[in-house]
Amino acid sequence: MATNRILTDDELSPEAAAIFDDIRKTRNTDYVNNVWRIVANDPPLLASMWSQMKRVMAEGRKGGLDPLTKELVYLAVSIANNCEYCTHTHTAAARRQGMTEAQYGEFLEIVALAHYGNSVATAMQVPVDDIVKVGED
Amino acid sequence: MATNRILTDDELSPEAAAIFDDIRKTRNTDYVNNVWRIVANDPPLLASMWSQMKRVMAEGRKGGLDPLTKELVYLAVSIANNCEYCTHTHTAAARRQGMTEAQYGEFLEIVALAHYGNSVATAMQVPVDDIVKVGED
Amino acid sequence: MATNRILTDDELSPEAAAIFDDIRKTRNTDYVNNVWRIVANDPPLLASMWSQMKRVMAEGRKGGLDPLTKELVYLAVSIANNCEYCTHTHTAAARRQGMTEAQYGEFLEIVALAHYGNSVATAMQVPVDDIVKVGED
Amino acid sequence: MATNRILTDDELSPEAAAIFDDIRKTRNTDYVNNVWRIVANDPPLLASMWSQMKRVMAEGRKGGLDPLTKELVYLAVSIANNCEYCTHTHTAAARRQGMTEAQYGEFLEIVALAHYGNSVATAMQVPVDDIVKVGED
Amino acid sequence: MATNRILTDDELSPEAAAIFDDIRKTRNTDYVNNVWRIVANDPPLLASMWSQMKRVMAEGRKGGLDPLTKELVYLAVSIANNCEYCTHTHTAAARRQGMTEAQYGEFLEIVALAHYGNSVATAMQVPVDDIVKVGED
Amino acid sequence: MATNRILTDDELSPEAAAIFDDIRKTRNTDYVNNVWRIVANDPPLLASMWSQMKRVMAEGRKGGLDPLTKELVYLAVSIANNCEYCTHTHTAAARRQGMTEAQYGEFLEIVALAHYGNSVATAMQVPVDDIVKVGED
Repeated sequence: MATNRILTDDELSPEAAAIFDDIRKTRNTDYVNNVWRIVANDPPLLASMWSQMKRVMAEGRKGGLDPLTKELVYLAVSIANNCEYCTHTHTAAARRQGMTEAQYGEFLEIVALAHYGNSVATAMQVPVDDIVKVGED
Repeated sequence: MATNRILTDDELSPEAAAIFDDIRKTRNTDYVNNVWRIVANDPPLLASMWSQMKRVMAEGRKGGLDPLTKELVYLAVSIANNCEYCTHTHTAAARRQGMTEAQYGEFLEIVALAHYGNSVATAMQVPVDDIVKVGED
Repeated sequence: MATNRILTDDELSPEAAAIFDDIRKTRNTDYVNNVWRIVANDPPLLASMWSQMKRVMAEGRKGGLDPLTKELVYLAVSIANNCEYCTHTHTAAARRQGMTEAQYGEFLEIVALAHYGNSVATAMQVPVDDIVKVGED
Repeated sequence: MATNRILTDDELSPEAAAIFDDIRKTRNTDYVNNVWRIVANDPPLLASMWSQMKRVMAEGRKGGLDPLTKELVYLAVSIANNCEYCTHTHTAAARRQGMTEAQYGEFLEIVALAHYGNSVATAMQVPVDDIVKVGED
Repeated sequence: MATNRILTDDELSPEAAAIFDDIRKTRNTDYVNNVWRIVANDPPLLASMWSQMKRVMAEGRKGGLDPLTKELVYLAVSIANNCEYCTHTHTAAARRQGMTEAQYGEFLEIVALAHYGNSVATAMQVPVDDIVKVGED
Repeated sequence: MATNRILTDDELSPEAAAIFDDIRKTRNTDYVNNVWRIVANDPPLLASMWSQMKRVMAEGRKGGLDPLTKELVYLAVSIANNCEYCTHTHTAAARRQGMTEAQYGEFLEIVALAHYGNSVATAMQVPVDDIVKVGED
């Protein structure tokens, strides 16, 4: 159950339909995910969200990170934010980018350990080391 | 201000001192971060946390992820968890692993966009696509 | 599946039954939500939670915020906290307070953008501007 | 201490300088906040973040929410995400939009009560009421 | 820097002053924490928050949990929510309730391990075991 | 639906099978939870997670906290992190450790109140009292 309707192609506004065309073309697939079909209820949100996703994730930037690293960063955030939809979608996307089972295992250990270390540093309110400050000035 | 004392080398228990030796040897530096000096108040926690950090982050696993990707995953979680100490420490660590300004910028956009997308998917309670489910069974 | 039983009216303690009467009277409906039927397992928690909800949300305070704004604030927190039950319930409540589709779309963009901006400010540990400090002293 | 340099006007790239001009013009003030001066280290992030903030927060959308409600929604998310910078900045912004002390007090009670209610619903894993589902289908 | 003024005793409204008297009497100390001095800007919030804290934390309930356990539960939540003020205050409160260094170390390990385990279960979207469901019906 | 397969005993690697034997022996039950059956896809993660859970939760440390308090701390974190699996599992575990309905109700009130108080302290950015600092130096 979602908080708004999952629109079929027939129900899209012209603005949303044009964006769906771009999603299909950019991703080279006819399938359009549920998140876009729900966000399509508000064309301005759809336009803003898709333009960002296209530029940052689908096309990337020159001199930047490799596609698998990008998916793993997105997935790490999604797990920390406890987003069920995003966790499933970006785990699948990481696999499409070639993530092996061994890499997935290592990724999971890093994510788990980061949560462990984060909670200890927060619990004890550890002050930032001067050496880190110096290194950044 | 921390919730416990930041121990000097002279104040360490023998068990903690032995772990500090291993930290210095593994990292090839005499400097030991504040987080270890605070955690050293409880040697079992110090032993457990260091053994994990050493195995997962410092030494890594065969066939796994490259060191910069690992730091970026750790940093992404630290940001999502809002850990000030960890954010500073692992941004510095990513730079030591060669992160360029362009890569940092791209990383930040992915982190920001993931928070954006996570909140939309959560706000609208988007159901997971069947195609993702099929792909994982 | 919940972690405790969803009580029927017949199973309520006298203290809980009296609170259910007040919920029905205050809200002018016979329907009592699941959250109250589960919380009713602990009458002191039921009494405390209802008295707050009644005073803050159902009745409001003089000179305060309008009912839709109040629901949107509650909903924004529920989304950020990833509370599935609360997200559904307060989206429905905002609609009952007259939220249009256009307002819902704008609300969603603000929530998404706040998550985006929050994560950037946290990632880069941006110091608070002096001008904000001055403005508040 | 931030994770990157707070740029002065003299240090901006031409692309960033043009965006700063637009920030000043749109907001009708010469002052540019720290967050923009740090984000300016990465012009694509600056461009994306400003274009969204301008469209969603500074200019708004037709038929949408009033400026104070928008600030309160942004602030509610910032508090839930524990963003120190954003909490200060958007509390000040809400006051500039006319928020009274009484409204601030009511806002705080709603935010606090939402956290209270969210945690109870999550702790007890309360199932969504059918009546809410029906109301949305 | 706070978002509102830290009131001195002389600046309190009569309603707030009466609550400060009760805080001092209940806690058997003349010292009143900053959080109450800030919340005192809004007497209804002060009244609601203090009445809950008094009933739940200061006085407790019959047949309930011991005072140290209660502080540790409050502290665990505060750490997970990354509340700096609350983490310091309730660590100090737990020590006043007799928490030893060994107990603090064990507490920290549990908190860290819970974050570790939570993130793994969330990352892998582990379905709840039938045996747990059966055990609760 | 999980992001990886829930392994049967027949599908375990020898390393994972040995750990399952230890889980069964330590817990004195033949039943092995879903979380272990999914984590078993990556034996190093399984080994690390189980060794910690065994040492910290199943066996405990000398001079430490009682088993129910430990479960309540773990559960409080799980609720704050919104981990559905962990919330169910550790609520059931707390009941096995003798948690009464009255204790559960009191626990829930503390968790809810901590979220309430955390959000107020964060919203108002309350500075830590000097008296707390003094008490810890």
